[in-house]
Amino acid sequence: MSAPASKGLSRALRQVKRPSLPKSSLRPTFAICQPRRSFKSTPVKREDTSEQGHKVKYTTDMYPSLKRDSRFSEITSDHVQFFKSALGDDAAVLDGVTKDAADDLEPFNSDWMRKYRGKTNLVLKPKNTQEVSKILKYCNDHKLAVVPQGGNSGLVGGSVPVFDEIVISLSRMNNIRGFDDISGVLSVDAGVILEVADNFLAEHNHLFPLDLGAKGSCQIGGNVATNAGGLRLLRYGSLHGNVLGLEAVLPDGTIVDDLSLLRKNNTGYDLKQLFIGGEGTIGIITGVSVICPQRSKAVNVAYFGLESFEKVQAAFKEAKIQLSEILSAFELMDGQSQGFVHQVTGNKNPLEGEYPFYCLIETSGSNTEHDSEKLEKFLEHVMGEEIVLDGVLAQDESQLRSLWRWREGITEAIGHFGGTYKYDVSIPIQDLYKLVEDTRERLQSKNLIGDDDSFPALGVVGYGHMGDSNLHLNVPVRRYTKEVEEAIEPWVYEWIQKRNGSISAEHGLGIAKKKYIGYSRSDNMIRLMKQIKDLYDPNGIMNPYKYI
Amino acid sequence: MSAPASKGLSRALRQVKRPSLPKSSLRPTFAICQPRRSFKSTPVKREDTSEQGHKVKYTTDMYPSLKRDSRFSEITSDHVQFFKSALGDDAAVLDGVTKDAADDLEPFNSDWMRKYRGKTNLVLKPKNTQEVSKILKYCNDHKLAVVPQGGNSGLVGGSVPVFDEIVISLSRMNNIRGFDDISGVLSVDAGVILEVADNFLAEHNHLFPLDLGAKGSCQIGGNVATNAGGLRLLRYGSLHGNVLGLEAVLPDGTIVDDLSLLRKNNTGYDLKQLFIGGEGTIGIITGVSVICPQRSKAVNVAYFGLESFEKVQAAFKEAKIQLSEILSAFELMDGQSQGFVHQVTGNKNPLEGEYPFYCLIETSGSNTEHDSEKLEKFLEHVMGEEIVLDGVLAQDESQLRSLWRWREGITEAIGHFGGTYKYDVSIPIQDLYKLVEDTRERLQSKNLIGDDDSFPALGVVGYGHMGDSNLHLNVPVRRYTKEVEEAIEPWVYEWIQKRNGSISAEHGLGIAKKKYIGYSRSDNMIRLMKQIKDLYDPNGIMNPYKYI
Repeated sequence: MSAPASKGLSRALRQVKRPSLPKSSLRPTFAICQPRRSFKSTPVKREDTSEQGHKVKYTTDMYPSLKRDSRFSEITSDHVQFFKSALGDDAAVLDGVTKDAADDLEPFNSDWMRKYRGKTNLVLKPKNTQEVSKILKYCNDHKLAVVPQGGNSGLVGGSVPVFDEIVISLSRMNNIRGFDDISGVLSVDAGVILEVADNFLAEHNHLFPLDLGAKGSCQIGGNVATNAGGLRLLRYGSLHGNVLGLEAVLPDGTIVDDLSLLRKNNTGYDLKQLFIGGEGTIGIITGVSVICPQRSKAVNVAYFGLESFEKVQAAFKEAKIQLSEILSAFELMDGQSQGFVHQVTGNKNPLEGEYPFYCLIETSGSNTEHDSEKLEKFLEHVMGEEIVLDGVLAQDESQLRSLWRWREGITEAIGHFGGTYKYDVSIPIQDLYKLVEDTRERLQSKNLIGDDDSFPALGVVGYGHMGDSNLHLNVPVRRYTKEVEEAIEPWVYEWIQKRNGSISAEHGLGIAKKKYIGYSRSDNMIRLMKQIKDLYDPNGIMNPYKYI
Repeated sequence: MSAPASKGLSRALRQVKRPSLPKSSLRPTFAICQPRRSFKSTPVKREDTSEQGHKVKYTTDMYPSLKRDSRFSEITSDHVQFFKSALGDDAAVLDGVTKDAADDLEPFNSDWMRKYRGKTNLVLKPKNTQEVSKILKYCNDHKLAVVPQGGNSGLVGGSVPVFDEIVISLSRMNNIRGFDDISGVLSVDAGVILEVADNFLAEHNHLFPLDLGAKGSCQIGGNVATNAGGLRLLRYGSLHGNVLGLEAVLPDGTIVDDLSLLRKNNTGYDLKQLFIGGEGTIGIITGVSVICPQRSKAVNVAYFGLESFEKVQAAFKEAKIQLSEILSAFELMDGQSQGFVHQVTGNKNPLEGEYPFYCLIETSGSNTEHDSEKLEKFLEHVMGEEIVLDGVLAQDESQLRSLWRWREGITEAIGHFGGTYKYDVSIPIQDLYKLVEDTRERLQSKNLIGDDDSFPALGVVGYGHMGDSNLHLNVPVRRYTKEVEEAIEPWVYEWIQKRNGSISAEHGLGIAKKKYIGYSRSDNMIRLMKQIKDLYDPNGIMNPYKYI
């Protein structure tokens, strides 16, 4: 039935103002991007279906072409002795060289996704920057390869060893060094857990300008080393802008003492930027200072249905105009992604009808009344103009969490059926969803998608941070097959390359994307990057076999 | 007469709501930091009082210890011939080598402050990146030193030659390459003038995330090369966060093709960051992409009097809490600075009484009513709590400009009396104003400040970007004397060093601050910076005699 616009608008707005959302006890924070570390205890289906049973395959089995770099020395008991004496504390050295410590070492050898597994026999836990310097200088002098490790919550295998690289864990460097509640500048050891810092800041009405699902375990040093993106980037920008200072240690033991607490300091090359997103390949970050914004008092969430990706773009454009300074998230979920969440959780969809696209909008501001008024006016406009077909607005925090769950729950829901081919990519916004459509068409034309068990793939799903032009392309499968893999790769990377996209928007390179960097960077850029690597790490001991 | 707080509040608020500001025809934009380029035609007093008359002293006379680097070749007619043929256009080469072109060359040899003057005989104006590449490769091969030049509006002599370095002007590379009004990503040639870009963006309801007084002449490439700070940093952050991509040319002709239009791209070292604030010492920026925010519909300005710097800090803290997402400027002006503006302009002070400190607050948001309500509530609070003693709120754009004039007009007013010793520094916010007090005390104790002509100094003035912890310390003098200079330098740098401040907050190093970098950077950092310089520019041809 087609009703006049004004009538449809009024009906829809009533619904917007009187949502009846299912109450459920969901996770207490708005984790979206990366599942929390606690998933470790309930591994996702993808891993269960591997043929490894409980043991994770060694990375070297997954990448048989990788050979241990013969430049690196083997670790001896003399080395272990040096580290014990340098760290002055036996507990700071997990020694699997002179004795059996396999169980203790396992958490440092494998990642939380149970996807990568190394063979280290030695973990060092320095407690201050000087100790990191001593360790690195010794390793560099003795050609011992190392892997810096923070919360080990990465998604590309960057924080676990491949062979017997020494793990340098920053977990004991966990002091908040200082906070100035006038300037908002926070200074921390690299090993401070993101959530600990954010909770500390909450007590002072401030906010860490980065948030992500793994906040309960990831460390700020690791966040900076991987240039983590997460939930607050749309509003607060990237770590390249928010990190004011860094302290880091180079392989030769040099301490890069650039831990400025100043917002402005134009005195020379901004070298710290090389460590932001450097993934521990040129040095180890030991301290970070960051500018933190005021915490918002008011948070609102709305959830819409839309008929096309063109309408999604129009809604985003309107949100930027009308919500402007209070817009803190604009997330995209396609119909199929929401179908999977519904199918797996059994939760009633927030909207009555079904739509090809859904968006979740969050606003954060200092005045509840003003923000609600802006949001309602925005909703009135986008519904009146039929940019949005239907929508609901959370009336309390529980509803707000329920709505976020339709975005957050996608990863888990999709993983329910077997495995998932996952791609985290940036694409110019106009083409963002076309990748999903083209991938779907491609798999359909090869007869690889279908409703029954004879088809390996269940569908092609797209969702992500619309506000950052960051798409998560997921292909849920009943089983991993060579046909599906060959249909997708390297085709998907070529597709992205043609549109000047990025093959890794926020997850980094690690070991998983190392070989694909050429799809997003020119030969010139890769050569210049290698030049930087050689400059700082001429022996190549820092996090080898990864990155570039 | 001491009235009860509530009565005082009500009186003050009436004033806030009913300001009577002097109307005057001021500059139509909110330029603060750097006087506009048009000052060139009416040079500030400081320069007029020099003994040079109309001719600006050569930089080599001001810095007699500087010697021309003998590694560099002299320019010959063969070189000129090559450039003419490479640029395919005689108008692209200003040739003072084979003929007299001194007058044409003068604007490229001296800066707008008339403080620095070089001796170049050759200016090249490439029109695209390939031409820049050809030029640089040739210069590198032939050991010809160069100076990249944008709008030549810098404050530290970074953009003019010292000896006979070839000027490479980016002024002909002035195309807007593209803009996407959904993502807000703008892509431009380096030579696009900031105001041109901002006007273009205004047509699309967007804003360049940088604004400064020289916007009518400065070029975006130069802004990026100097990591310009300016007026919008408090709200939108630094160029390190806002610049998404760069195209640059290295001395060997390599094109750094990193002009990403993506907000997220975690594929390798973020090399472009080295060019941001690199002051043209490792390469020439030829293209820039930048993320641009939505333009605010509503702008409000308030002006207060406060009794102490502690109260200024309290007001800033409250502004961050209550104005939060709409706060776009928080500027500090001390009583003496406002006294000079009053004395020179004759304008009636916006407030009735006199106060030791004044602040200017600007809000920018998407809803006039909401913003006014927030600002009024804030004013009510800070006046009720006696954080602020008195204040006015602009009621229309003309009043808004008048209020800004009390901040903007300081530089001109101070320059009225003779000369000014100027320092642009960052200091942790608690100590920000102490530098002014200590400097004042120091000059007083040396009997150098006073009301009559027998004293060289008129006073010590402090103002600046409170929100960025960025102080402009100014010492207006009747005449430059050795005594004043020796009383201030290097004492002021030592003072800043002790508090881990920065001797150059936003102006950069250039030639003016080169020798002082050690006050803000450790030997380690300087060594690492020199390593980068040597890596990219082994022949040292890029903007020599400056930076580090």
